[in-house]
Amino acid sequence: MNQHSDLMIPDTGQKRLVIIGGGFAGIELTQKLKSADLQVVMLDKHNFHTFQPLLYQVATGGLEPSSIAYPLRKALRNVPNAIFRMAEVLEIYPQENILETNIGRLSYDYLVIATGSKTNFFNFTREVSAQMMQLKSVNQALDLRSYILQNFEKALLTKDETEKESLLNIAIVGGGPTGVELAGALGEMKNHILPKDYPELDFRRMQVHLFEASGELLSAMSDDSSEKALKYVKQFGVNVWLNTLVTGYEDNVVKLNNGKNIRTQTVIWTAGVMGASINGLNPESKGPANRMLVDAYNKVKGHENIFALGDIACMVSEEWPKGHPMVAPVAIQQADLLGENLKKKMKNAEMKPFKYFDKGSMATVGRNKAVVDFPGGKVKMGGFIAWLAWMFVHVMTLIGFRNKLIVMVGWLYNYFNYDHTLRLIIRPYPTKEVGSDATL
Amino acid sequence: MNQHSDLMIPDTGQKRLVIIGGGFAGIELTQKLKSADLQVVMLDKHNFHTFQPLLYQVATGGLEPSSIAYPLRKALRNVPNAIFRMAEVLEIYPQENILETNIGRLSYDYLVIATGSKTNFFNFTREVSAQMMQLKSVNQALDLRSYILQNFEKALLTKDETEKESLLNIAIVGGGPTGVELAGALGEMKNHILPKDYPELDFRRMQVHLFEASGELLSAMSDDSSEKALKYVKQFGVNVWLNTLVTGYEDNVVKLNNGKNIRTQTVIWTAGVMGASINGLNPESKGPANRMLVDAYNKVKGHENIFALGDIACMVSEEWPKGHPMVAPVAIQQADLLGENLKKKMKNAEMKPFKYFDKGSMATVGRNKAVVDFPGGKVKMGGFIAWLAWMFVHVMTLIGFRNKLIVMVGWLYNYFNYDHTLRLIIRPYPTKEVGSDATL
Repeated sequence: MNQHSDLMIPDTGQKRLVIIGGGFAGIELTQKLKSADLQVVMLDKHNFHTFQPLLYQVATGGLEPSSIAYPLRKALRNVPNAIFRMAEVLEIYPQENILETNIGRLSYDYLVIATGSKTNFFNFTREVSAQMMQLKSVNQALDLRSYILQNFEKALLTKDETEKESLLNIAIVGGGPTGVELAGALGEMKNHILPKDYPELDFRRMQVHLFEASGELLSAMSDDSSEKALKYVKQFGVNVWLNTLVTGYEDNVVKLNNGKNIRTQTVIWTAGVMGASINGLNPESKGPANRMLVDAYNKVKGHENIFALGDIACMVSEEWPKGHPMVAPVAIQQADLLGENLKKKMKNAEMKPFKYFDKGSMATVGRNKAVVDFPGGKVKMGGFIAWLAWMFVHVMTLIGFRNKLIVMVGWLYNYFNYDHTLRLIIRPYPTKEVGSDATL
Repeated sequence: MNQHSDLMIPDTGQKRLVIIGGGFAGIELTQKLKSADLQVVMLDKHNFHTFQPLLYQVATGGLEPSSIAYPLRKALRNVPNAIFRMAEVLEIYPQENILETNIGRLSYDYLVIATGSKTNFFNFTREVSAQMMQLKSVNQALDLRSYILQNFEKALLTKDETEKESLLNIAIVGGGPTGVELAGALGEMKNHILPKDYPELDFRRMQVHLFEASGELLSAMSDDSSEKALKYVKQFGVNVWLNTLVTGYEDNVVKLNNGKNIRTQTVIWTAGVMGASINGLNPESKGPANRMLVDAYNKVKGHENIFALGDIACMVSEEWPKGHPMVAPVAIQQADLLGENLKKKMKNAEMKPFKYFDKGSMATVGRNKAVVDFPGGKVKMGGFIAWLAWMFVHVMTLIGFRNKLIVMVGWLYNYFNYDHTLRLIIRPYPTKEVGSDATL
């Protein structure tokens, strides 16, 4: 059985399954293993789950962190065989079945890696990428919120029009859901909120730019939805640059592959993600974009008792040659199946291979505007009804009744008042934690 | 007229009145001067107003910062002649009628100091006081919240029972409203919430201590209310130490004047406040506890065009030999009158001296328990009805409909569920800003 751990995990005599990461996959798996004869240990560097699809609302002052974050201890309350530790995993030693964390070592019988993804700056240097904002964690969202507001305060203090515009302008790189939703929300703020807060500033001088390398926004969705999204974002006053690559950023100037330059002090990078991997695994497990190659049972390649779920897992199949999309439904479905399969395994029953059930996809572009693709991509939906559907799905997916309630109240209030009251610079940016903030 | 300012304040040709501080007094005064022929400039180091009476609820996870903080720009929206700048005032030069701030210099015709109060550690050294937590600002409340939760996480990792208890124990110094309300809230958490979140910890080992130098809690209130408060706090499992002075704190041990020692890593100092004064004023204006001596018209002693309002102002009279209590109603009533008097002054009409109308006082001790003294101190009220009255008054005083709504929803939810879901360590303590956080 497993040896002593200085994380003070009691030895129950049961086999120990350690889950790294309290995201959608991690939480779903603990629920599935409620009845299993296993000791389940969840590790996360935060003590809360982050509902990432709504981070952009925290960044734009539409929601409070507590509305999209949920205490992991509370999420695990109903799982008697589960234990939580707030810990950052530094290294895995597969030979000894041991983890090295920032609070000590822990042995495991089964290991499940559900660390999700982090921002991928591709070949930008650390110097360049450090000047860009990210939107993968609550802290990053709060930093972005503070930073934008601080720039407006600064803009009031300069006579230099060029400087003023570089403070007001915002560049978003990446036309995926995060980029599009963020652009829409910022467009709304520009049109309805900021002029009231800053009567001294001329917001016609504020430009929100959205850069997309491919020929369409939301390229993962149907052409129909992509076109609608483009139309909506433009209606919110956002400047969309398709087929445009950001090639550099220095001295507050964004350089584009078309030779043009955009002056701004705020560049938000949403153009790529990569797996938040951990050192120590068999090199042959290394897949594209830092993800881990897994078989149809989410077992990591080259390991017998290590599994990977969700964004970090890359399950290559004929249907999905590049692996599944890095979205919540995949993570939840994989966790669901792994829970079943582990129970089967212990009964020496045959395990079931993973089959992704695509529930369709959706994205919102602010007030009354969203796009929805139903499974198969045949049926599509846009505009107000799609927006209601988006609200419904997201509120329903939020963990915890209180969060649902608060989010609803907040949204309804904003909806009827065209206003976000959360324009508080609680922690001025930059703060100590900036940069040191991975998604695990 | 006034000279150029590099805070980019336009010269409207009007006389300029500068208000330092966006607390109750500052906001009230801007509202009163809406119609006055004055340019009103409000300066605050934060871009939001803080509803200090409810900070303890943020610290104990009952409320979000945004529920008790309100954007100052929004509060000033309806005042066309008012301008806001996020600035920290460093020095006043009364001879030249100029302010030095962290973003430049600003000239004034009238100056109103409404900077409020900050924690008074009396003769504790910086080394000792730096180890204690405070509760005068939103950041301090969030730090306290994170710090307490982080200590519980640590408590899980130690075998040493002494160490464990020092991590669980909490000492509150000062039996005023803040100390009492905080103690009650922590007692509630200990009884109803923490055991569910931390089944591994034995919370019978967690002690909440409340130290009060005088012979009663809430000494500013009636003896009747003081006794009730004592009874209620004890019912929440708080250990109350009356006539007990904290004489030192080192190596996680609180030293008491009765020779006893208490082991804890969390000491919250609510035992004293002092005026958050600014350098540069006439020495003769210096009053007790760092407050500024003002006449019956809130004019600062030794100055003709400088006024002080609220906590920072010390208006000595026969009725109030030590000045008025440092509470919101005094600040609001003084701001109200100063607004009137300034208008009178400009019409060369006679100004009215200040007369405090005591509306009574109240304090809550958690769920269903509060005490209320009505004006004159004759009528008193306790228990559930007092608690309802306390809720009503505080929710009604909160600025902004949304805040009222969110606070209500949050409180009702907590009430029926015995639960606070805001147990999120968003920013681990210590953060960069700690200590550098005055109340201005």
